[in-house]
Amino acid sequence: MLAYLAGPDVFLPDAPAQAARKAAICARHGITALPPLNEDVASLAAMDQETAWRTIFAKDIAMMERADLVIANLTPFRGASADAGTLVELGWFLGRGKPIFAYSNTATSFAERSAALLRLCPDPMPGLTVGGFGLPDNLMIPGAVEQGGGLPVFLPARDLPFDSLEVFERCVAAVARALAR
Amino acid sequence: MLAYLAGPDVFLPDAPAQAARKAAICARHGITALPPLNEDVASLAAMDQETAWRTIFAKDIAMMERADLVIANLTPFRGASADAGTLVELGWFLGRGKPIFAYSNTATSFAERSAALLRLCPDPMPGLTVGGFGLPDNLMIPGAVEQGGGLPVFLPARDLPFDSLEVFERCVAAVARALAR
Repeated sequence: MLAYLAGPDVFLPDAPAQAARKAAICARHGITALPPLNEDVASLAAMDQETAWRTIFAKDIAMMERADLVIANLTPFRGASADAGTLVELGWFLGRGKPIFAYSNTATSFAERSAALLRLCPDPMPGLTVGGFGLPDNLMIPGAVEQGGGLPVFLPARDLPFDSLEVFERCVAAVARALAR
Repeated sequence: MLAYLAGPDVFLPDAPAQAARKAAICARHGITALPPLNEDVASLAAMDQETAWRTIFAKDIAMMERADLVIANLTPFRGASADAGTLVELGWFLGRGKPIFAYSNTATSFAERSAALLRLCPDPMPGLTVGGFGLPDNLMIPGAVEQGGGLPVFLPARDLPFDSLEVFERCVAAVARALAR
């Protein structure tokens, strides 16, 4: 099984090393990882901006087309919610009807994170209200994960470092068990 | 044509009135709007949290299934990027191969907004780097819009109020012209 590894891991300073660690965890559970690194596009630096981003987009979509499923890192990134690109990819897998599995390294609920963000960055106008529902993120996200893969978003008992692989490994093991059934 | 109106508009204090204004603009251009309001789920308040969010999710997905296309409001919301739920929906339309059109009320680039956010809310670890590419948001977003509908993300010349409908109207008019071709 080919698993697309969506997540803000691509933004890490050691993105290729982190992708290799995630791929090794997947391999131990019989899953082949497809991490969307930009390092495989050797000519990227020589391109103008317009060509570069379209090349990355086309490469990621092609990798998603090849994938049998997605394992998404939903750890919040630059806002109250998961990484923006990851969310587009999550929706894509839901639209395609390919299985979706996901985890986050944050135990703090969406409502608590939203309140903390609003203390630092107020909304542009008063009265904007988003239901928290005790969920780890905007309801479309756990909804997509639950409908897409039949498992909940895997969460830690307490907040873990941004690049921790503890919950990822627990998620991959559960995915392997689910696929074996 | 049935257009699903994705966006953080559902979080406005006057969400039903805003949806009616958007629907009227669509109607003037021969498009029938499907705004994902929660007001149509009369029994929501009586439900427990788990039932309520799953009901909203199922209702929104069913509306997306009915829609011929999406017109998404990508105005940044609670972070550097567009609203999280909107991004899942954007990805869903891309995965389904249904046309995607979008606008934002912010003229400020993704790179500038990210830098401003980071001054208030630093990343959880140093060295996280996201390419801006001169784009209005994470590259997966304009990529999805461009591939999905063949038009760019409609933007204002300067930042507009969060609930402005000026760029939305320009976007709807362009969608109507594109559909007529």
